[in-house]
Amino acid sequence: MLKRLCVAALFFVVGTTTARASDVRQAVDAWRAAHEASIIAGLESLTRLRSVAADPQGLTAAAQALSAQLAARDFSVRVLSAGKGAPPLLYAERLQDGATRTVIFYAHYDGQPVTPSDWSSDPFVPVLRAGARLSDPVVAVTPKTAFDPEWRLYGRAVSDDKASIIAFLAAYDALKAAGIAPSVNIKVVWEGEEEAGSPHLQAVLEANKALFAGDLWLIGDGPAHQSRRPTLYFGARGSMGLEMTLYGPVRALHDGHYGNWVPNPAAMAANLLAAMRDDEGRILIPGFYDDVRPLTAAEKTAIAALPAVEPGLKTAFGIGRTEGQSGLYDSLMRPALNVRGLRAGGVGAAAANAIPTTATVSMDFRLVPGQTPERVRAQVEAFLAGKGWTLVTHDPDAADRGAAARLVRLDWEAGYPALRSDMTSPAGRAVIAAAQKASAGSLAVIPMMGGSVPIYLFDTLFHEPVVGLPIANHDNSQHAANENLRLRNLWDGIDVYAAMMADLRW
Amino acid sequence: MLKRLCVAALFFVVGTTTARASDVRQAVDAWRAAHEASIIAGLESLTRLRSVAADPQGLTAAAQALSAQLAARDFSVRVLSAGKGAPPLLYAERLQDGATRTVIFYAHYDGQPVTPSDWSSDPFVPVLRAGARLSDPVVAVTPKTAFDPEWRLYGRAVSDDKASIIAFLAAYDALKAAGIAPSVNIKVVWEGEEEAGSPHLQAVLEANKALFAGDLWLIGDGPAHQSRRPTLYFGARGSMGLEMTLYGPVRALHDGHYGNWVPNPAAMAANLLAAMRDDEGRILIPGFYDDVRPLTAAEKTAIAALPAVEPGLKTAFGIGRTEGQSGLYDSLMRPALNVRGLRAGGVGAAAANAIPTTATVSMDFRLVPGQTPERVRAQVEAFLAGKGWTLVTHDPDAADRGAAARLVRLDWEAGYPALRSDMTSPAGRAVIAAAQKASAGSLAVIPMMGGSVPIYLFDTLFHEPVVGLPIANHDNSQHAANENLRLRNLWDGIDVYAAMMADLRW
Repeated sequence: MLKRLCVAALFFVVGTTTARASDVRQAVDAWRAAHEASIIAGLESLTRLRSVAADPQGLTAAAQALSAQLAARDFSVRVLSAGKGAPPLLYAERLQDGATRTVIFYAHYDGQPVTPSDWSSDPFVPVLRAGARLSDPVVAVTPKTAFDPEWRLYGRAVSDDKASIIAFLAAYDALKAAGIAPSVNIKVVWEGEEEAGSPHLQAVLEANKALFAGDLWLIGDGPAHQSRRPTLYFGARGSMGLEMTLYGPVRALHDGHYGNWVPNPAAMAANLLAAMRDDEGRILIPGFYDDVRPLTAAEKTAIAALPAVEPGLKTAFGIGRTEGQSGLYDSLMRPALNVRGLRAGGVGAAAANAIPTTATVSMDFRLVPGQTPERVRAQVEAFLAGKGWTLVTHDPDAADRGAAARLVRLDWEAGYPALRSDMTSPAGRAVIAAAQKASAGSLAVIPMMGGSVPIYLFDTLFHEPVVGLPIANHDNSQHAANENLRLRNLWDGIDVYAAMMADLRW
Repeated sequence: MLKRLCVAALFFVVGTTTARASDVRQAVDAWRAAHEASIIAGLESLTRLRSVAADPQGLTAAAQALSAQLAARDFSVRVLSAGKGAPPLLYAERLQDGATRTVIFYAHYDGQPVTPSDWSSDPFVPVLRAGARLSDPVVAVTPKTAFDPEWRLYGRAVSDDKASIIAFLAAYDALKAAGIAPSVNIKVVWEGEEEAGSPHLQAVLEANKALFAGDLWLIGDGPAHQSRRPTLYFGARGSMGLEMTLYGPVRALHDGHYGNWVPNPAAMAANLLAAMRDDEGRILIPGFYDDVRPLTAAEKTAIAALPAVEPGLKTAFGIGRTEGQSGLYDSLMRPALNVRGLRAGGVGAAAANAIPTTATVSMDFRLVPGQTPERVRAQVEAFLAGKGWTLVTHDPDAADRGAAARLVRLDWEAGYPALRSDMTSPAGRAVIAAAQKASAGSLAVIPMMGGSVPIYLFDTLFHEPVVGLPIANHDNSQHAANENLRLRNLWDGIDVYAAMMADLRW
């Protein structure tokens, strides 16, 4: 203990101490083992601040608390306004003498909205359960509690995305306590409206471009690989949403007296969807795959090297087949058309012998590099027009209806493109090497995450490598009730974060 | 007046007076013109009795009131029990000296369920409006009110099916007042659970078969032709309902992280439906049309002779195309697969980037003569099995899920076959001739109604011609809120009912 304290003192005085990989992990693990209760307490406190879009005061309180925590750790902090009424974006930096590279750590301090009635406990009063099930008993933490790494903390945003923030802070504290100097300059970008679609992020980044100069973006968000291995991802699919409303008669009509003469919008919706996507997930819209940038050899190798999680997932999800006749991550490298919802007429007790007036199909597209939202939109609209559909952006009036054989209203959601960073760039190789050491060789490297985060933005604005550093357990009930964080994921996350501060060299 | 009274007196003493067609219509019209207020009052009183399934006392009250009305008109009445707790079936007869034919008039005194909040007025407190729109003013009836035939009475069951009962009673009263003797023996079957699917009708008919012996069934139910002409139909399509539930993952999954690998039941539902039915209403299930009995030359001629209502309906319904590339009634002669409803995931504000756990498709089949529910069910199930679906009748458990690539739960509703009576039978010709006279040559003769009523039952049990006598305006808001009856339809209905009592000869 004494030796460690001495090294720490040296570090903060002269800032020249470095350490080998195993030293970093051992030191961090030892510090973490001694501070588990306070790390969890930090996450609990942050959770209680209710930083969700519905609670602007909670967002402000979280920003203030985190600003203070960064300042207390020798960071110079700037609270950047993201616009009137919007939660601020926290910028912080800690430059390291002698460091030649600058790493920017992104995370977000806001959480998804909550429907408290769906939760087993108050979303903002975290509870620790002795297992992964809601039926597992709540742990009453005492000074002597020995934390089982399979225990989970339940609360809104504990995993998405406050775990990343807590892991960052704990990693920094552990290194500091161990006297291990950062190998890079550290910048922090923590925003407060990621779950609202980051409406101001681009503007703030553009307005403060010099501030965000660096050599590597590390995106602390998303779920880890299903194998529970520490995970890196080098990109994410893009996304765009579309709601199609197909019109039948102006009022519901008796389907005995008018069925198979008056067009049935529910049947039309089925036929239209079937013409857009087959049961293997193939998108049948002409030209849809034309723009797709193929995987590189390194990316294919990385996918092949991922642990096989498919049999376990099939059992866990209760599915007897999969789409696409390939492994999960092979499938996720392709663009997708996901049907999010269907609504027409009534089913069950509400079923009536009637031709519905409308049918609504909600879907999202997942884009891959090479595709753009603009071009996908043009392809979809050309496809629909080619099938004889008249496209409207409002509910049709009598004139619209009389003039068109097939009417569909399109409501597009704003979308954004995918990004796949080069895994073989010097920065990419350095990140993989450091994370490999931090995970004792048990790392999952994913060329592109299936889910979407707008990380194309960092690439577009700064032309710097972007790598994802997700630490939450994949089965964290993300975006739903009873969101939770498995403690082992947090402990592993602290190791990887420490490696990214102290072990990156290129 | 004096002469008419004398004839009436003679009629009821000796029962031998007959009348020519024009006499019948003129006499009935004159009587009706003098009694419009009381006819409407009769329908209002009957409506106030709340004879809907949710109100067993209302059903009993209606049965009692109607029983008394029939008895007061020289009918011998029997109240037949339809089973414990079920509303009774009223049987009544009035035999006519010298008549060689017996006609059985069917109607039902129960109405569809109501959702009062959807109504513009109390469903059981009828209001008369000076037009077809809910915005038209309510008419305050006074002793001097001159009724416009375009006025409409609003209330539950006013058109479906109490109008048929009131038309029958008024026609009888008009003939009696005019001293015109029936040309046939009259039997009455009025049931009280048609809107519940007539669960006891067959049993009551079978248990009292001798009672229902006759030469012709006249079914007083259904909407008249859209041309507003007095209408006959010689059959009705059969019907059977099916709800299909397709299974995806056991819990909703992030469609970015799992989309196009975990099967999407909403997409599968679309593909499955598209394989069952195209946008022209053609059913693609192998063999589905094999059993269809073709139309006769007379039936084709009757359809061709129907007034063209299609352009007006397209405008009224706000549709720019129709299915099947044929006229409305040509389409209705074919079997149909109607999609009643679709449900999967969420749309609009409830849309989430998730793979839904299930997709539900509610549909009904409309059958034509030659098809049976049993055979259609077998064809559908063979089709599904051939497409690789495993059929279950319950929600699947983990073992079911693991063992099947595609799982669908089928919930079949009880169905029944179609009926198309011979329009060229002696009874059929007689009905057409009498109705032609009553409508001054302006009659719509429909070989088979598109909607379903279980009239196959009368044919199956009694092997007698079955003809439908619908009088309600087609735009009566049937089965929905604000059900209404156009007065002119009631007046025309009284004429046709009178013709069926006094002018049928074969």
